[in-house]
Amino acid sequence: MPARLIVHGGAWRIPPEEHADHLQGVEAAARAGWALLMEGASALDVVEKAVMLLEDDPTFDAGTGSVLNCLGEIEMDAIIMDGRTLEMGAVAAVQGIQNPVRLARLVLEDTDHNMLVGQGAHDFARLKGMRFTPAAALTVPREVKRFMAFQAQPPTKSAESFTAAASGGTVGAVALDNSGNIAVATSTGGTAFSLPGRVGDSPLVGSGAYADNETGGASLTGHGEKIMQVVLAKHATDLIRLGKSAQEAADASIAYLYQRVEGYGGLIVVDKFGGLGFAHNTPHMAVAWVDETGALHTYIAPPA
Amino acid sequence: MPARLIVHGGAWRIPPEEHADHLQGVEAAARAGWALLMEGASALDVVEKAVMLLEDDPTFDAGTGSVLNCLGEIEMDAIIMDGRTLEMGAVAAVQGIQNPVRLARLVLEDTDHNMLVGQGAHDFARLKGMRFTPAAALTVPREVKRFMAFQAQPPTKSAESFTAAASGGTVGAVALDNSGNIAVATSTGGTAFSLPGRVGDSPLVGSGAYADNETGGASLTGHGEKIMQVVLAKHATDLIRLGKSAQEAADASIAYLYQRVEGYGGLIVVDKFGGLGFAHNTPHMAVAWVDETGALHTYIAPPA
Repeated sequence: MPARLIVHGGAWRIPPEEHADHLQGVEAAARAGWALLMEGASALDVVEKAVMLLEDDPTFDAGTGSVLNCLGEIEMDAIIMDGRTLEMGAVAAVQGIQNPVRLARLVLEDTDHNMLVGQGAHDFARLKGMRFTPAAALTVPREVKRFMAFQAQPPTKSAESFTAAASGGTVGAVALDNSGNIAVATSTGGTAFSLPGRVGDSPLVGSGAYADNETGGASLTGHGEKIMQVVLAKHATDLIRLGKSAQEAADASIAYLYQRVEGYGGLIVVDKFGGLGFAHNTPHMAVAWVDETGALHTYIAPPA
Repeated sequence: MPARLIVHGGAWRIPPEEHADHLQGVEAAARAGWALLMEGASALDVVEKAVMLLEDDPTFDAGTGSVLNCLGEIEMDAIIMDGRTLEMGAVAAVQGIQNPVRLARLVLEDTDHNMLVGQGAHDFARLKGMRFTPAAALTVPREVKRFMAFQAQPPTKSAESFTAAASGGTVGAVALDNSGNIAVATSTGGTAFSLPGRVGDSPLVGSGAYADNETGGASLTGHGEKIMQVVLAKHATDLIRLGKSAQEAADASIAYLYQRVEGYGGLIVVDKFGGLGFAHNTPHMAVAWVDETGALHTYIAPPA
């Protein structure tokens, strides 16, 4: 089985002046993840590494660069799932961590649980000797400015933020390794100006991510409340079981998201046969992938 | 469309001396919920009320009577979902609340979000003027005793607790009202002696609960980590879309849970045609339902 990798940096209306940074960010994550895959790394290790790079890139709404909630604080969510065993680790509403996906991996590896949230997740990070990062070091000027604008005039409808230039970019990766194992990871700083403790689709298994060697893997981004309502990552991988390719599953999933709940978002998919796909109904989505020849491609908008 | 209601009080090895309490608890919740349905209440109101009664019953591992985590604290999770709109409210790792399902309903009704966790959920409860209950008033002697025993000899494998007499009973309800609307609610105190912040399947959409007027509704209980791995509530309702009855979907879902991840648990299902079903692969599961004649039935174990 030839290896495959696809990553995303969020689906929303990305301001034109930020396109270059988004493309460079997803390209760097895909390149580093692919190098690991070529060295024989597992799909699980590859999606963790790719998402850590995207978390560390201040361009994206995950890790450093996360959006601020209505208290001006960063709360982050992440999940990582192993399609070989269906085991996962997830964290939600964690603060002061450089790499939430790393903490999610530790939940997978070192606990009998699948998900830790809030203070409990924070205490677990301390227990594992993780390094903490002051909120100020995770917070970028772009998000301070956005927060101040929101505070001056709070948004009236959360759905609007996914078609207006007021959202950020959740990140994710799906990989298929040479052993035929599929893994997925998704990480986010959530939605700007949300209530504290708000959790969207990203860290929820079946909603923001799903991986199963019997079908494929999918990572979601967009309006989390809508994506949750249709449990879209599981929906996408179930379509592969029903005979769809990765691209057909991606297209059908976004159609379903809009048809059932008028939701906006995007997803990346890898099927167990090595097919890659992505789809979005937002103006833009930052994506990078490696094709069967090993060539790296990037994408941010449909052809004009 | 004739109304339907089914409730559960958890699937595990229920000690014989507790069978009567479990049966009385689910019967009382089903009776009260059915009375509301007959008065024309919505499915959403009915599942909220039925689950609140089960939370208030110290017999079950939800609300009063919840198990204690490894710090000796109660953290509770709940979800409520409206199959008419696919809207939901969920809370996780909340403390000091009498009725987590009520807080979940307030998330559904009064926020743009679907899920609040930890301190943020607690702050939202204060904001909404909810009454708080001291931890001591939620904690029953049975769970203090269990905690002391666990502390003396910590469990080695969490899976064992679902076949041994060491677990509690997550609660749930699925209703179909006279307007053809389906709703589901699930509430739990989680797993005994868990890490703080641990979240299982119960409050996760698609895992512990799902409701969709186009298919049906399902509420899960059992080994949460395993149920999450296969996103089992969504799986069950998707089987209805593929032509299965509620009972066939329940049976097939438990078979899938064991086949894919060797998981133990149980679920209740209502399909959009008014069919009822439940299944479990644990020794016992407390269930109560009302049949098409309006007669109330209870169940706790398969015929000897």
